[in-house]
Amino acid sequence: MAHIDLGVDEKQFPGVTGPMQYRPETAKPLNELAEVLLRAPHSLPAGERELIAAYVSGRNECTFCCASHSAFAAAQLDEGMDLVDHVRADLDTAPISAKLRALLRIAGAVQISGRNVTAELVADARAEDATDLEIHDTVLIAAAFCMFNRYVDGLGTFAPEGQDAYAETTHRIIDVGYGSAARTPAA
Amino acid sequence: MAHIDLGVDEKQFPGVTGPMQYRPETAKPLNELAEVLLRAPHSLPAGERELIAAYVSGRNECTFCCASHSAFAAAQLDEGMDLVDHVRADLDTAPISAKLRALLRIAGAVQISGRNVTAELVADARAEDATDLEIHDTVLIAAAFCMFNRYVDGLGTFAPEGQDAYAETTHRIIDVGYGSAARTPAA
Repeated sequence: MAHIDLGVDEKQFPGVTGPMQYRPETAKPLNELAEVLLRAPHSLPAGERELIAAYVSGRNECTFCCASHSAFAAAQLDEGMDLVDHVRADLDTAPISAKLRALLRIAGAVQISGRNVTAELVADARAEDATDLEIHDTVLIAAAFCMFNRYVDGLGTFAPEGQDAYAETTHRIIDVGYGSAARTPAA
Repeated sequence: MAHIDLGVDEKQFPGVTGPMQYRPETAKPLNELAEVLLRAPHSLPAGERELIAAYVSGRNECTFCCASHSAFAAAQLDEGMDLVDHVRADLDTAPISAKLRALLRIAGAVQISGRNVTAELVADARAEDATDLEIHDTVLIAAAFCMFNRYVDGLGTFAPEGQDAYAETTHRIIDVGYGSAARTPAA
């Protein structure tokens, strides 16, 4: 049970979708932010941006956000969930590009504190051909998930167990986009 | 100097306003979120909502966000900056309502982790007549400033020193709203 009455069946509206039903005025900019950062056309593939979201959510121990964004990342990366699991378990040895590894190190610093992002971490990413926009968006994706994770867990929302529970939402997010999950109950 | 080239004079666009100039696509939902949470009509006065933002930003040691939202809070609270300083220094003894103190304790928990918000903290707020919407918005304001703080510091933006530097922005935010600061350079 969530800490407040969200006015919905929490199993039908798990995680962030319950509070988004409860407060559509804040759901609108939150979904718009997620859409721009994670789905809009970009030099970083959507799967890699979702991987940054999943990585940060895992470090914040947010079960719902980590499971859902891991599923969204896996569905859009050729190597699927094995790669997501490897990145989350051991970033240093995961088979990803040097650029993505450097960006994930920046995201990991942001997860602790913005003040932990050093000039050296940024220089390392730039040395691997990361652009200013990619560095900006990595910082903001990581920061945004420090918000989403706290929103979801701070209200004590329900998180379904098992990957299967996120399959329907994965299709909807990839096909339709953020905002769709808040309008329609989970299958 | 910020970690990336924001394309603006950072003294004219300090803190979050520089990245908002750089990336208007994300500035739009970020400003809309701040507007709904901090300025829209609400049972919690705007000064109290800004106080929650300042309190969380201080705990995250974000100089720009703490100084600016402390100024926005002080300008909208009868007791001014003395009260903001007292709340930030010692929440237990600050002369505020029992409801606001209970909400600030929830915000303090969110600042560490969403998982630190306990049923007891929520029950304490409800015992002081906090509504579900007030609890929801307190959690989301605190979570949102864990994002804004990381965004501002993760990009290494410039923070002016001294309260005077925030006076012009304070008038603009209170009179016109969020979004205005990103469109016009600081005085």
